[in-house]
Amino acid sequence: MDIATIAGLIAGSLVVGSAILMGGDVGTFINIPSIFIVIGGGFSATIIRFPLKNVFQALALGGKVAFSHKSAEPKDMIDNIAELATTVRRDGPLALDNLEIDDDLLKKGTQFVADGYEPEFIQELLELERDQYLERLDEAQRIYKAIGDAAPAFGMIGTIVGLVQMLSNMEDPSTIGPAMAVALLTTLYGALIANLVALPIADKLSTKGKIVEVAHTLTIDGVMQLSAGKNPNLIREMLSAYLPEKVRAQMIAAEASAVTT
Amino acid sequence: MDIATIAGLIAGSLVVGSAILMGGDVGTFINIPSIFIVIGGGFSATIIRFPLKNVFQALALGGKVAFSHKSAEPKDMIDNIAELATTVRRDGPLALDNLEIDDDLLKKGTQFVADGYEPEFIQELLELERDQYLERLDEAQRIYKAIGDAAPAFGMIGTIVGLVQMLSNMEDPSTIGPAMAVALLTTLYGALIANLVALPIADKLSTKGKIVEVAHTLTIDGVMQLSAGKNPNLIREMLSAYLPEKVRAQMIAAEASAVTT
Amino acid sequence: MDIATIAGLIAGSLVVGSAILMGGDVGTFINIPSIFIVIGGGFSATIIRFPLKNVFQALALGGKVAFSHKSAEPKDMIDNIAELATTVRRDGPLALDNLEIDDDLLKKGTQFVADGYEPEFIQELLELERDQYLERLDEAQRIYKAIGDAAPAFGMIGTIVGLVQMLSNMEDPSTIGPAMAVALLTTLYGALIANLVALPIADKLSTKGKIVEVAHTLTIDGVMQLSAGKNPNLIREMLSAYLPEKVRAQMIAAEASAVTT
Amino acid sequence: MDIATIAGLIAGSLVVGSAILMGGDVGTFINIPSIFIVIGGGFSATIIRFPLKNVFQALALGGKVAFSHKSAEPKDMIDNIAELATTVRRDGPLALDNLEIDDDLLKKGTQFVADGYEPEFIQELLELERDQYLERLDEAQRIYKAIGDAAPAFGMIGTIVGLVQMLSNMEDPSTIGPAMAVALLTTLYGALIANLVALPIADKLSTKGKIVEVAHTLTIDGVMQLSAGKNPNLIREMLSAYLPEKVRAQMIAAEASAVTT
Amino acid sequence: MDIATIAGLIAGSLVVGSAILMGGDVGTFINIPSIFIVIGGGFSATIIRFPLKNVFQALALGGKVAFSHKSAEPKDMIDNIAELATTVRRDGPLALDNLEIDDDLLKKGTQFVADGYEPEFIQELLELERDQYLERLDEAQRIYKAIGDAAPAFGMIGTIVGLVQMLSNMEDPSTIGPAMAVALLTTLYGALIANLVALPIADKLSTKGKIVEVAHTLTIDGVMQLSAGKNPNLIREMLSAYLPEKVRAQMIAAEASAVTT
Repeated sequence: MDIATIAGLIAGSLVVGSAILMGGDVGTFINIPSIFIVIGGGFSATIIRFPLKNVFQALALGGKVAFSHKSAEPKDMIDNIAELATTVRRDGPLALDNLEIDDDLLKKGTQFVADGYEPEFIQELLELERDQYLERLDEAQRIYKAIGDAAPAFGMIGTIVGLVQMLSNMEDPSTIGPAMAVALLTTLYGALIANLVALPIADKLSTKGKIVEVAHTLTIDGVMQLSAGKNPNLIREMLSAYLPEKVRAQMIAAEASAVTT
Repeated sequence: MDIATIAGLIAGSLVVGSAILMGGDVGTFINIPSIFIVIGGGFSATIIRFPLKNVFQALALGGKVAFSHKSAEPKDMIDNIAELATTVRRDGPLALDNLEIDDDLLKKGTQFVADGYEPEFIQELLELERDQYLERLDEAQRIYKAIGDAAPAFGMIGTIVGLVQMLSNMEDPSTIGPAMAVALLTTLYGALIANLVALPIADKLSTKGKIVEVAHTLTIDGVMQLSAGKNPNLIREMLSAYLPEKVRAQMIAAEASAVTT
Repeated sequence: MDIATIAGLIAGSLVVGSAILMGGDVGTFINIPSIFIVIGGGFSATIIRFPLKNVFQALALGGKVAFSHKSAEPKDMIDNIAELATTVRRDGPLALDNLEIDDDLLKKGTQFVADGYEPEFIQELLELERDQYLERLDEAQRIYKAIGDAAPAFGMIGTIVGLVQMLSNMEDPSTIGPAMAVALLTTLYGALIANLVALPIADKLSTKGKIVEVAHTLTIDGVMQLSAGKNPNLIREMLSAYLPEKVRAQMIAAEASAVTT
Repeated sequence: MDIATIAGLIAGSLVVGSAILMGGDVGTFINIPSIFIVIGGGFSATIIRFPLKNVFQALALGGKVAFSHKSAEPKDMIDNIAELATTVRRDGPLALDNLEIDDDLLKKGTQFVADGYEPEFIQELLELERDQYLERLDEAQRIYKAIGDAAPAFGMIGTIVGLVQMLSNMEDPSTIGPAMAVALLTTLYGALIANLVALPIADKLSTKGKIVEVAHTLTIDGVMQLSAGKNPNLIREMLSAYLPEKVRAQMIAAEASAVTT
Repeated sequence: MDIATIAGLIAGSLVVGSAILMGGDVGTFINIPSIFIVIGGGFSATIIRFPLKNVFQALALGGKVAFSHKSAEPKDMIDNIAELATTVRRDGPLALDNLEIDDDLLKKGTQFVADGYEPEFIQELLELERDQYLERLDEAQRIYKAIGDAAPAFGMIGTIVGLVQMLSNMEDPSTIGPAMAVALLTTLYGALIANLVALPIADKLSTKGKIVEVAHTLTIDGVMQLSAGKNPNLIREMLSAYLPEKVRAQMIAAEASAVTT
């Protein structure tokens, strides 16, 4: 689980929720037709913009990626691949066939190596897999952004509909206040969906995309070296270029002191 | 028919419509002069921006493209062209003359081949055709976007006109509410036209433009190979570069297993 | 006359005007001080931004270009130049001296040819002329855009001034409504000036600039070939590169059938 | 003096001022605390953004440049430099020592020439001078723009402060109107500062920067040729590349007719 | 301390504070739930956007950098490094071991030189250090900007929540005013956080980033020359390229007069 996404959503809901609770009457803030107009309207505008099936795929993928925290540390991934390289050196590539591997792309890659595919084919297949995944992440980000644009627009539309209804029917002054309160709810829902959910998740997807790109490229590089039967230490050395700078700084410092002492 | 565009429009209208229905009086929301001011004003501002005849053409083209779903799958198009190549190999280019072909550009291209035009002329003509079509799609997109900008502006102008009329004539307090309700209708219409129709269709046209560009370029490439009398399998191979990555991945995997087994 | 610009302005004014008329009292919507504050304020902010004399020149030029429809069809221009080339071949360059020519740049160019200037001087002079004209069109566009930004800002300023006056003097409740109506008029004027006049004309100038650039470049090329005494058919052939794609497609198709038949 | 800037400011103030005067009570529109909150708040936000001393320098420089009209016509500058070249040719570089020169950069440059500095040193020093001046103009422009962003924001903040005070203390209904009037004043001040002063001056500085760049580069080129003791006519010829196109067109036409007659 | 940042914050708070004080009742403007909703909501939206730990680090770093004024003048830094070079020349690199050095990066660099690391290792380590610091500054800037976007959004959300509560419960008219006052407080807090704190600090971090980049690059260059045992005067000469133009202009002028006299 990605604590930050969930913590943010829960904290934001709590903050707004407690502000509502302190006003006493929670029921005032729940209005099914208002929820319907904002979510339904925002969704309608989004499926005109994007192909229908992409919208559902993207919503699911985006949700999964934003909330999950699967992307392992590059350091662990390198260790993992170096270990596999040791196995290959000891027992041959066929030994990769019956291994438990968490990472989907690495699993697919080692399977290809175990199956004895040509390196070029393996590389092309894995890169296609990575590019498709990144493309889907990118589309998910654009779709969440489109929702973040459409929700406040339909929030405003809902509020105007409510105001028109209230204004054209003002015989009983005591109903004016509550009617306006209901009219404002769609604006509130639209602002919450956009600012607490859709736009932050769109930003998160863009951040995750960059992390995934590095991780997948590292994995593909590692698999190619596995398939070439490279030495585990050499693999470790070559893949260290993917490490964040801090870790590399420590490694360089260690080497430097090793050289000079 | 492009289900997504229509589904989105119907769903959005239903959502807003049911919100209006639940308020009871539908008639309040229909006001011919308000519709007139938003659509008329938005249209006026648009025909100042763009040449008059282009606006009508673009509205029609944009509507047709956004709602239709003619662009065939690249895979089917390749099969189609490979089949034509078989015909050419068997019966010569003249056999293309009396074939039923759905795709306009492919039909025109095969006709040119059947008529024995020079390949350079065929290519230049088909590329001009494609570029003109894309240019018209692009202008349609800009015109829908301009409408999406102008409609809310004239919605606001209409509301101010209504407010001024109401404010300068407040003898009878009971008319204030209904008058303001009517004034707000233009803002509502402007927001609906922009957010439910014009801007999403503009986005859709931009997406369709990319799909059409690939499809037409594939078609032109295919026609050139037809006119050169190429082997159907070779054509299939060369055109596979236009396939989306998923399909290509399957093809590569199939080849890879074919090679290694 | 450019029908679209005028039709748009008239249609937009009619739409807004009829909305006002239907409210009964037209006088409510005419308020000289409000017109004064929006136009005066917008104009003041514009002359701070741009050199004083450029503003007047640009307003005049912009108006003239947006409403006029002088730019001839490229096809007619090519015919025109080819005809002049025939005259030159028959009677020598001096025959250009006493010809009636509509297009200013072409007239100037043929005059230079008749006067026997060096080709390099003619080209440099005509290109300077074209570049200055385009630069002035471009500045006119930026000035109309600046007015389109300033008018709504001063509309809002005028409305706040009116509101402050009304609010600080509310003894007689019956004056509140009409006072607010007057206050809103500046916002209405600002929105109309920006959305119906200034911004659409700015866009139109940018479109016209592109058309003028092609037309003037075609004219300069044609004059250079006149001055070189080229054959009319050759000139027609060379200048056809400036034709829009549709017309060229017809010409290519005609040639192709001519070649193959 | 730059008439346009001053004329614009005066005209804008007159327009708004007369709108206020016509409402009768000018005093309503003058509220020291409101002026204080908009100018103080906008200034506070600006000095967080930019180093303190730069803000004061930039305000002064920006004001001076926007209102002054010192930049001479390129044609006069060339005449001026050509005259100095005549002096140098007749009396040697030392004659430049006791000349009255208006333009600061030219004065500094001729002084360097009179002092017998190496040409490379002179060029490097003058270019540093020019680049620093342009950099300071550019920073002044960014600071005026930041003020134009901050003023309306603090105008809104002031209005909300006023509204909260009014709303939390509504015992005497007769004070509501005047209190709201005062609250709106900060929004009015913010809009006026941004739209009539800060943003137009920022634009003006950007325009002036382009003019100054040409003028200073022309001056540096001229000084370098003075220091090389070049012939006045040659200098005039070489510097004519800096003239605006209209003037150059006249010169070319003159030469052309001179050549052909 | 960076006087400008603090002065700006204090001045801005004083300005708004005195506007509040003059209204009499300060208590009206302090509302813990409103503070809670704006800060809590803005923070929630931010931690969805960015990894959790980065947000805290960035807030701390950003605050530290915006308020501190550690970046020494380039001129002093060059003097400092030249002095160290003198020490190295006199006493050997080991003498750098027990020196008191303020600047963190310079201290680390001289320590590496004293420890006898290879120049390539030193350079790579120091550049990694600099790049990480700049990357963290950049992320801090983006996080402050995200807060500056989220705070007004949650200010608006809080105001709508308050309005809905007030409108749905209007039995006692005397509570309407105060309730609306409280509702407006979140908008006020959001505007203040964004316009007085978050956005200006984001801009400041971007300015400081540029200064730090120059200072750190200068330091790394200096350390490399220290480790090569270069002559102090040579170091001074080479590092002078980092000086701002004004100081360089003085140095060039001094040299020029030295050469010519």
